[in-house]
Amino acid sequence: MSERILLSHGSGGDLTHRLIEQLFVRHFDNDLLRRLSDSSLLGACPDQALFTTDSYVVDPIFFPGGDIGKLSVCGTVNDLAVAGARPAYLSAGFIIEEGLPMEDLEQVVVSMAREAQQAGVQIVTGDTKVVNKGKADKIFINTSGVGFLHPHFGGSVNGGGLKKGDQIIVNGNLGDHGIAVLAAREDLEISSQIRSDCASLNGLISQVLDRVEGIRMMRDLTRGGLATVMCEIARQNNLGIRLAEEAIPTDEQVRGMCEMLGLDPLYLANEGKFIAIVDARSADQLMDVMRADPLGRNARIIGEVNDDHPARVVMQTRIGGRRIIEMLTGEQLPRIC
Amino acid sequence: MSERILLSHGSGGDLTHRLIEQLFVRHFDNDLLRRLSDSSLLGACPDQALFTTDSYVVDPIFFPGGDIGKLSVCGTVNDLAVAGARPAYLSAGFIIEEGLPMEDLEQVVVSMAREAQQAGVQIVTGDTKVVNKGKADKIFINTSGVGFLHPHFGGSVNGGGLKKGDQIIVNGNLGDHGIAVLAAREDLEISSQIRSDCASLNGLISQVLDRVEGIRMMRDLTRGGLATVMCEIARQNNLGIRLAEEAIPTDEQVRGMCEMLGLDPLYLANEGKFIAIVDARSADQLMDVMRADPLGRNARIIGEVNDDHPARVVMQTRIGGRRIIEMLTGEQLPRIC
Repeated sequence: MSERILLSHGSGGDLTHRLIEQLFVRHFDNDLLRRLSDSSLLGACPDQALFTTDSYVVDPIFFPGGDIGKLSVCGTVNDLAVAGARPAYLSAGFIIEEGLPMEDLEQVVVSMAREAQQAGVQIVTGDTKVVNKGKADKIFINTSGVGFLHPHFGGSVNGGGLKKGDQIIVNGNLGDHGIAVLAAREDLEISSQIRSDCASLNGLISQVLDRVEGIRMMRDLTRGGLATVMCEIARQNNLGIRLAEEAIPTDEQVRGMCEMLGLDPLYLANEGKFIAIVDARSADQLMDVMRADPLGRNARIIGEVNDDHPARVVMQTRIGGRRIIEMLTGEQLPRIC
Repeated sequence: MSERILLSHGSGGDLTHRLIEQLFVRHFDNDLLRRLSDSSLLGACPDQALFTTDSYVVDPIFFPGGDIGKLSVCGTVNDLAVAGARPAYLSAGFIIEEGLPMEDLEQVVVSMAREAQQAGVQIVTGDTKVVNKGKADKIFINTSGVGFLHPHFGGSVNGGGLKKGDQIIVNGNLGDHGIAVLAAREDLEISSQIRSDCASLNGLISQVLDRVEGIRMMRDLTRGGLATVMCEIARQNNLGIRLAEEAIPTDEQVRGMCEMLGLDPLYLANEGKFIAIVDARSADQLMDVMRADPLGRNARIIGEVNDDHPARVVMQTRIGGRRIIEMLTGEQLPRIC
């Protein structure tokens, strides 16, 4: 293969074929992909199907704890998992800037393959486009995903159905992804040991659904962070949400960086964090299941649902005050995922 | 809404929400999308499921006969349809360059909505990313699609199973899309009346599957054109393909433009053309069904499968000679779709 991506790799002709066979099929290897059909025949569906999509444009494409390839698998797997689905199949659509070093593409592809294997999903169909140098930034990846509803999920796919007293639990520290990507940007001379939390949550979520009753809903905490998700949920259910600042887990270094840069961890993107809202009677059981998993070791109960201030999210601060939490306005960090 | 796309439209915060509600949900309007869940619950599958993906990077984004929005729906609908599926659900992933006029985005979205309605598919899930000015070129769209196997399709999803004597039929003129897009490029001062053939073929293909037995396989003729698709099929089946040059339908203006520009219509991208390979006994019936549909009015039998020259495509030329057809090498026209 050539050392760099050429426009011809996106022509649909012989170089496209070689790229597909020597790179994508080799690494993503599975029976469905090997058929090299434009559409992949998944067969009969074991349960109700769910469908999602996300494009990834993170800058830089490699960062501590992950890269755009790993992110593109985790992100879409997590979208399905928090909706109560068992993720099964992914598509991969690449938009590549002419001149991208082939070894960078291979590293991204290897990373996708590894994460897909880890998460137990298959990349079964794909597409490659190449645009002239300067018309895209290195590589953008779209992954869409198909999953099937977990038989034990009795909650709401779209996040309704909350009740007063429900407990809100997060599986760990907030803000690691946002800070890790920011620190990796070439134009910022920051060094830190913070790694992105980028991880597929479907294994942990499957444990939760198998072993905990009364899960009302789950949501991943990506762009817009915990604050934005909480505001969406409060509005949608026309119920209040109370968060306890002292209960919200963050890494000390992340807090320090946020203070230095004027950022708020509540609004930072995470790629391995989700909240579950659960019937209060099951909160302890959920905490036990979470904490038994490496991805939930630092889980915390961070708040509860109430009817005191419908459609509002209120934070009880460390010093005993209260402040209203708003949805993210403006843009804190472009191209964080 | 603001007049141009801002980075904040991709933040996941309040501007993203407004864009989703005021633009995407308004135009793509359907029950599944209105739930505003990150994953769309499709429900039980009526038949075996198929899954496909394509990214669209066509330049310019508006061209005679279509735009990137229409193309992004047709292209993915057609990928499913030629695999024997009834397309049902699409995802839409937007990567937008900061500063894109909002009216351009709206025009693209309206065009997607109209084509989706025409094709009878629903856009049920989506994603929007915005990148800084100069880091993408106006707008790139990924659509992934889920469809269900047509109950009458006994052919091969991935294009195997051909027999000697099978007839090859195309539904109309080749090369219109490639030439229409080329002529629309600002840097080329060519005026022509040629319009892209961009169209959803699932209606016509459904007619074909309902009424014609012995369809071995179908393929759409996008990037790489007829020549590349024929080479793929010949290799995959280890059978020969003979094409008759005089039978291959092309518009006179397209032929003229191709001669002038040194292009070959056999390699040009089409966005509303497909070939069906059919048992010779059903060829007439297939021709009748094709020609009764506006999208197949100019259908022709263009060749047949043989065992004279395995894995090779041979063209019988107008002047009685023979030449071997190779897969597209290099890149004729970058960003044609």
